[in-house]
Amino acid sequence: MTEYKIALVGFGGVNRALAQLIAERNARWQHELGFGLKIVGVTDLFLGSVIDRDGLDAAMLAALPAQKGALAQIPQGSAEAFNEAVIKQSGADIIAEATFTNPKDGEPAATFCRWALEAGKHVVTTNKGPIALHAQALKALAKANNVSFEYEGAVMSGTPVLRMARQTLAGAGLVGFEGILNGTSNYVLTRMEEGLGFDEAVAQAQALGFAEADPTADVEGHDVRLKVVILANELLGACLQVGDVACSGISAIDSAAIERAQAAGERWKLIGSARREADGSVRASVEAKLLPGHHPLAGISGATNALAFDTELLGAVTVSGPGAGRIETAFALLSDIVAIHTAGHSA
Amino acid sequence: MTEYKIALVGFGGVNRALAQLIAERNARWQHELGFGLKIVGVTDLFLGSVIDRDGLDAAMLAALPAQKGALAQIPQGSAEAFNEAVIKQSGADIIAEATFTNPKDGEPAATFCRWALEAGKHVVTTNKGPIALHAQALKALAKANNVSFEYEGAVMSGTPVLRMARQTLAGAGLVGFEGILNGTSNYVLTRMEEGLGFDEAVAQAQALGFAEADPTADVEGHDVRLKVVILANELLGACLQVGDVACSGISAIDSAAIERAQAAGERWKLIGSARREADGSVRASVEAKLLPGHHPLAGISGATNALAFDTELLGAVTVSGPGAGRIETAFALLSDIVAIHTAGHSA
Repeated sequence: MTEYKIALVGFGGVNRALAQLIAERNARWQHELGFGLKIVGVTDLFLGSVIDRDGLDAAMLAALPAQKGALAQIPQGSAEAFNEAVIKQSGADIIAEATFTNPKDGEPAATFCRWALEAGKHVVTTNKGPIALHAQALKALAKANNVSFEYEGAVMSGTPVLRMARQTLAGAGLVGFEGILNGTSNYVLTRMEEGLGFDEAVAQAQALGFAEADPTADVEGHDVRLKVVILANELLGACLQVGDVACSGISAIDSAAIERAQAAGERWKLIGSARREADGSVRASVEAKLLPGHHPLAGISGATNALAFDTELLGAVTVSGPGAGRIETAFALLSDIVAIHTAGHSA
Repeated sequence: MTEYKIALVGFGGVNRALAQLIAERNARWQHELGFGLKIVGVTDLFLGSVIDRDGLDAAMLAALPAQKGALAQIPQGSAEAFNEAVIKQSGADIIAEATFTNPKDGEPAATFCRWALEAGKHVVTTNKGPIALHAQALKALAKANNVSFEYEGAVMSGTPVLRMARQTLAGAGLVGFEGILNGTSNYVLTRMEEGLGFDEAVAQAQALGFAEADPTADVEGHDVRLKVVILANELLGACLQVGDVACSGISAIDSAAIERAQAAGERWKLIGSARREADGSVRASVEAKLLPGHHPLAGISGATNALAFDTELLGAVTVSGPGAGRIETAFALLSDIVAIHTAGHSA
């Protein structure tokens, strides 16, 4: 039975959830998926780092207290984050990169990915930054080193969209997409339809843990814009940069606008979209749109995300599911590893 | 560049649409998908048959008049359907089976599939009959002969559900599904919400070509039941036979029931579902259900189909799209051939 050695870079919610899944499901995966995972290294700017080529106890890692330097409590652990050593020298076959998203330059995640790929390690990541900003260079690096670079979780967490489009819609003639790609903003709009004001709805989203203390990236469309760039470049062969995508959010939508829409059987949604034009170019945008009741995305409520593919042969095909969540995003990493396994890349 | 030789068994709407797509898109597929298709045989109980190992003109085939024995008009063609010869002796790598669905014993399609697999040919089919009734035996036969047996189009035409679940949700812990799997009945329910009576709505579906002259299989759930058996056996590892699935339809739903549901913010839907129980058994049913407004399937209107997967790690993941249509179903055959190509089965 195949066992992949994996190093976890960034040990916040997502990689911690992956450790938890490994603790609970490794034996089952051996049976169901044909491989198991062994954690040989962890590094995190806040928690420190540890390498153990014989394998770390996944359950113990999942239960690690969220205290500065906590990895020093583990034998061979350190309060310092030796990122490069964990990536290059832990003996890992696969690097799971899940550090914070930096929308400016994708760092330090982009460097972590580069180190790993150059060292001949597969990379799985859920991080929008490196993908939106550096996908082409990182994919070329992966190809040159004959390893995989997978990032299903960069859009809609574990809900399959990138791989679904590439694998199951190949040949269908994808010409564009429209998506509800930010759960916080869709939750806010749904609550406003139930009578709340914008500020109240945002406060509720914050109370439930959907929205950050500063909700700007969610409600002004910046988060969606990164995802639109990723999807347009990946699925429509565009070469968009973040600045190429016109972007506005939902903060200008007031209760009166919501009520008018409801009276007309319509719904306001924050839509990220892209479309290939007749001249071959790809136009993309992020903006609040009024959708008619029968639009494939009109029925998507609450924090759920959805993506409607527009295809020549099938018309609209829509997938909806979670767009965030620790376990849901950790599953995206697992699905990337399944893809690596299926492709026969046993390093 | 790879070229697969394909024989078309049954030349009604679906395989005729495939011929049309080949005529229009073969050069594009060479570029986009890495392979092209050459039609080397066609057979149809009504139209006759033809074999040409050098390749038949796909555009000419797509334009063939729908007259009894029409294939005799083609050089080397015959008014007689030499099914076995076309399947076994046309030199085809792949047999595209798209004859009529026989819900009783799956014949003659099941025999056509057997002949092809025994002769070492890949089979792609959109036919629910052989899959619902004989999938296990046919899959074993394919394995024994080292060829592929693919049938994405047996459920929801070209909208990817079987391959999506197997490939992109592997490891997510699928525990059940609920689906709107018959476009006619969903169209009828949608029209009834707009004020039509049941009989009027069925007549409209017939006028639009959705419903057969005898709409029983659609509105009484028999069509959905075959699809539930296919999905439960394929995705939940069940061994269900058609008679194991309790089945009722929508004909008992009257306008008063529709109005009561609307007043409560609910919608009647014909739901095919299956779920793995705690003891490992799989329970499946087909019945009209009242869905609350926020149910993932409540927003699916008209002839659209949808399938909501219930998973341990992602919760509900829903895919919606067309469930019928000539081109849409022909795309299912293409997607099966893409899967064969990707698996490296170049015969």
